[in-house]
Amino acid sequence: MRELRGKPVADDLTQQLKTRIEKLAENGITPTLAIVRVGERADDLSYERGAQKRFAGAGADVQVHTLPADCSQADLENTLTMLSRDPAVDGILLFRPLPAQLSETRAKSFIDPAKDVDCFTDGGYAALLTGSGKACPPCTPAAVMELLDHYGIDLTGKRVTIVGRSLVVGKPLMLMMLAKNATVTVCHTRTADLPAECRRADILVACVGKAKMIDASYVREGQIVVDVGINVDEAGNLCGDVDYESVSAIAEAITPVPRGVGSITTAVLLKHVTECAERSAETN
Amino acid sequence: MRELRGKPVADDLTQQLKTRIEKLAENGITPTLAIVRVGERADDLSYERGAQKRFAGAGADVQVHTLPADCSQADLENTLTMLSRDPAVDGILLFRPLPAQLSETRAKSFIDPAKDVDCFTDGGYAALLTGSGKACPPCTPAAVMELLDHYGIDLTGKRVTIVGRSLVVGKPLMLMMLAKNATVTVCHTRTADLPAECRRADILVACVGKAKMIDASYVREGQIVVDVGINVDEAGNLCGDVDYESVSAIAEAITPVPRGVGSITTAVLLKHVTECAERSAETN
Repeated sequence: MRELRGKPVADDLTQQLKTRIEKLAENGITPTLAIVRVGERADDLSYERGAQKRFAGAGADVQVHTLPADCSQADLENTLTMLSRDPAVDGILLFRPLPAQLSETRAKSFIDPAKDVDCFTDGGYAALLTGSGKACPPCTPAAVMELLDHYGIDLTGKRVTIVGRSLVVGKPLMLMMLAKNATVTVCHTRTADLPAECRRADILVACVGKAKMIDASYVREGQIVVDVGINVDEAGNLCGDVDYESVSAIAEAITPVPRGVGSITTAVLLKHVTECAERSAETN
Repeated sequence: MRELRGKPVADDLTQQLKTRIEKLAENGITPTLAIVRVGERADDLSYERGAQKRFAGAGADVQVHTLPADCSQADLENTLTMLSRDPAVDGILLFRPLPAQLSETRAKSFIDPAKDVDCFTDGGYAALLTGSGKACPPCTPAAVMELLDHYGIDLTGKRVTIVGRSLVVGKPLMLMMLAKNATVTVCHTRTADLPAECRRADILVACVGKAKMIDASYVREGQIVVDVGINVDEAGNLCGDVDYESVSAIAEAITPVPRGVGSITTAVLLKHVTECAERSAETN
């Protein structure tokens, strides 16, 4: 069994990006991400620290703009408008979910699509569907693609089964894998005989959000299993959607949780911000 | 074998829409489609006549705006801007493909997303992906959904195989069927053992654009086969992507070509224009 860890993928990607960032620096440009955080959610703070560390190590900047948890829609929209207009900001990341009083749908229209680094705007969705390559895909499915690419796993003609059809992972991943010539099946709670559908796959991707749901009965020898889930098990430990212990004994390769796909997302975010900076440098 | 013809679907849908159009008429509103046609392509003229007949029969209007085949990008954009601003126009349909001197990508940004009746704008694509229901899907995949609904074919938990991954049919259909709880597989030219993938399906949809490609070796008993192809065979006759003669002898149900899915598209167009008129009436 081969364990497909995220760190080597993130390190390699960051190394490649450093060269591109140095080139931008020669023209006086520092790729800059503006994080907009409402309140103090632990998840957000942890992701923020990870991004700051990753960016600093590569010569890029992160600005953090915080708003109180009880802020108004107008406060949020004003912040997003200001950042959309600021030529020093290349990418904008708004942490979600937002507190209940705020509308995500209304907020997103205040983000310049050219600075949308996590596929949050209509322009991002359109680019994903048309394959125009003119906007960034969401970071998590993009991290899965980086991982497969890093480990030399070609998708052409492969059967991929994705369990989960969310807007942030399942659906974008389906489109990204289809673009790489995989034969893609999307399964979900209403799928008949889900274990059988999963066993058919050459590459099985779990993004359901249910701790250890994919057990030994869902897999067969020779499969590559990608676990996108981040859950907490009964013992209070971080775990994926895949029951690592039983599945890793069968599959050919598997991504662990933690230390798998999740370790790559901040490097992907750095890639997206760098790409936005490069595009903006070309235009100006 | 059951032949799933398009005409009863289109007639039923039109009948339902008439009631909604009468209600709009009570408020002085006539759902109005503006067709923008560049040049005189036979396909466009034939579709135009079909739409005019369908709309006239239901109490709705079609305006045809023609531009010479050698018109400039500015001419096209001015026409689209004018129609986007005209409160009497509810929907805009630009015939494609455009002549080589014109950019489709640039043209589409001049169409008001609220009048996009064939999912041509970024707002339309975003609605398709997010499932917001705030914009119209493309007419052809929507016609497939109307057909399945009319014949009482429930998609929940069914295995659907779509052969073809185009932006106008395959990809939107995948999203629309996923939203109806089908387990969807998308196949294409790079799929390994395509006949076997097709035989697994409960519902097989062909949208490849290759005359009679899906023959008896791709199907099994009990399947529902939906043929979205419109091609011309060696003898010069209209035919689908499915070899009707051999497949109809095996499948449980099949849509013919002609007289199948293609017969429903103008009724779907009428539905989309009516919905735009209703939405605009609500807003004003």
